[in-house]
Amino acid sequence: MRTLLVIGIGAGNPEHMTVQAIAALNRADVLFVPDKGSDKSDLSALRHEICDRFVTNPASRRVGFAVPKRAEPASSYRSTVDDWHEDIAGIYETLILNEISEDGCAAFLIWGDPMLYDSALRILERVRQRGNVDFIVEVIPGITAIQSLCASHRIALNRIGEPVLITTGRRLAAEGMPGNAGTVVVMLDGNCAFRTVKDKDVTIHWGAYLGTPDEIVISGRLREVEDTIMGTRTEARAAKGWIMDTYLLRKPGESEE
Amino acid sequence: MRTLLVIGIGAGNPEHMTVQAIAALNRADVLFVPDKGSDKSDLSALRHEICDRFVTNPASRRVGFAVPKRAEPASSYRSTVDDWHEDIAGIYETLILNEISEDGCAAFLIWGDPMLYDSALRILERVRQRGNVDFIVEVIPGITAIQSLCASHRIALNRIGEPVLITTGRRLAAEGMPGNAGTVVVMLDGNCAFRTVKDKDVTIHWGAYLGTPDEIVISGRLREVEDTIMGTRTEARAAKGWIMDTYLLRKPGESEE
Repeated sequence: MRTLLVIGIGAGNPEHMTVQAIAALNRADVLFVPDKGSDKSDLSALRHEICDRFVTNPASRRVGFAVPKRAEPASSYRSTVDDWHEDIAGIYETLILNEISEDGCAAFLIWGDPMLYDSALRILERVRQRGNVDFIVEVIPGITAIQSLCASHRIALNRIGEPVLITTGRRLAAEGMPGNAGTVVVMLDGNCAFRTVKDKDVTIHWGAYLGTPDEIVISGRLREVEDTIMGTRTEARAAKGWIMDTYLLRKPGESEE
Repeated sequence: MRTLLVIGIGAGNPEHMTVQAIAALNRADVLFVPDKGSDKSDLSALRHEICDRFVTNPASRRVGFAVPKRAEPASSYRSTVDDWHEDIAGIYETLILNEISEDGCAAFLIWGDPMLYDSALRILERVRQRGNVDFIVEVIPGITAIQSLCASHRIALNRIGEPVLITTGRRLAAEGMPGNAGTVVVMLDGNCAFRTVKDKDVTIHWGAYLGTPDEIVISGRLREVEDTIMGTRTEARAAKGWIMDTYLLRKPGESEE
């Protein structure tokens, strides 16, 4: 039986790698390294940097593969993602059949943690359901952008005994701040949905390129810093060609101790 | 100026330690190791195991300290926590003043990640506000029980593009399943609040002693596995003298791919 290791490699700092992740990298005969296109070549470079630094298994080899671009959502976000995942499942199936021996082991290197807004596990489940190849999956957790954000701002994610909602920019824009959580973390937000929040007294803790030497963090009352964040974000994106950012919004009220 | 490193040491597996956390451990002159009492001596042992395995700095020393027990909530949960934090702040202040030289560096070893349902950062902020000693804080993220739970169950935390609520047992029992998230992660639940969930068609992914050799995981429809989880939990707790568990609830509906 083939073994697939789905390894969280952290949020951008190679030193986010855990001892467990390094051991897993070195168990694999094959390391699958996606190439998401030249606009995010920094990210691809970081994957290679991690392999260069931590892979000591002389028998392992890297296999690059192209990741198709997701279409712009047409009818629904979900069906667009569905089609995209089906394409990637085809690519994974080919990689698994062609690049791994029948009792071999391969690793997928996943940004952050495979559990958080990542689809590798779902796509592998699709591959399994196609029925052309069987395999065992093991998951190795990794530091997420949320953790990197909180560490850089030296803050707790939650207030004492309080819930936290993790959501997307799309949902924040549609639904506003939740009634059942004083803290919201927003991921996958290409459109600065924090601008749509009505209560400008919320506190924002924002970060881009978290964990990397280019990390930028800004925090403050939304009304006071939202323009700065917008401007900083536009400039940074233009300079580097891409941006990955995340933020936390906290309702005013109970004082932070 | 003194430097305090607040280091996430992972959810129970020493191999959750990141390269960054190991480097931080070795920057510290002093490692503060709390002792929460004999009922959780396994946890204290694991902290020492991590130090034994990863500390290579011959100049570092360990300083143990007793953590006061939190009183049972009387008037309000919050004011009970307040008093408890004030006590711990006094202990931290004494440790910082007596055990670290004026330009020294010390480390606090925190279960999971300092951002998630942990109060070290808040308590250090209290110490700072007392005004008797100043210091720089650096936070090093660590793998949380949530990540360990999802890795062991080989599942994503979120469904595609959907929010996730992280909450407490207390809140789940009081408020039920949220309307704005199809997935809920429940922490700090000593009373099996999943029993109070009305829709027994939700799926539960439960785990105890996550990341350790004693890890137990159970998943299924709540109606089919809740009694098994209750029984397993009671037995394990009696055998070991303590339990730490976490779980994820997912509403039925959209199929998991």
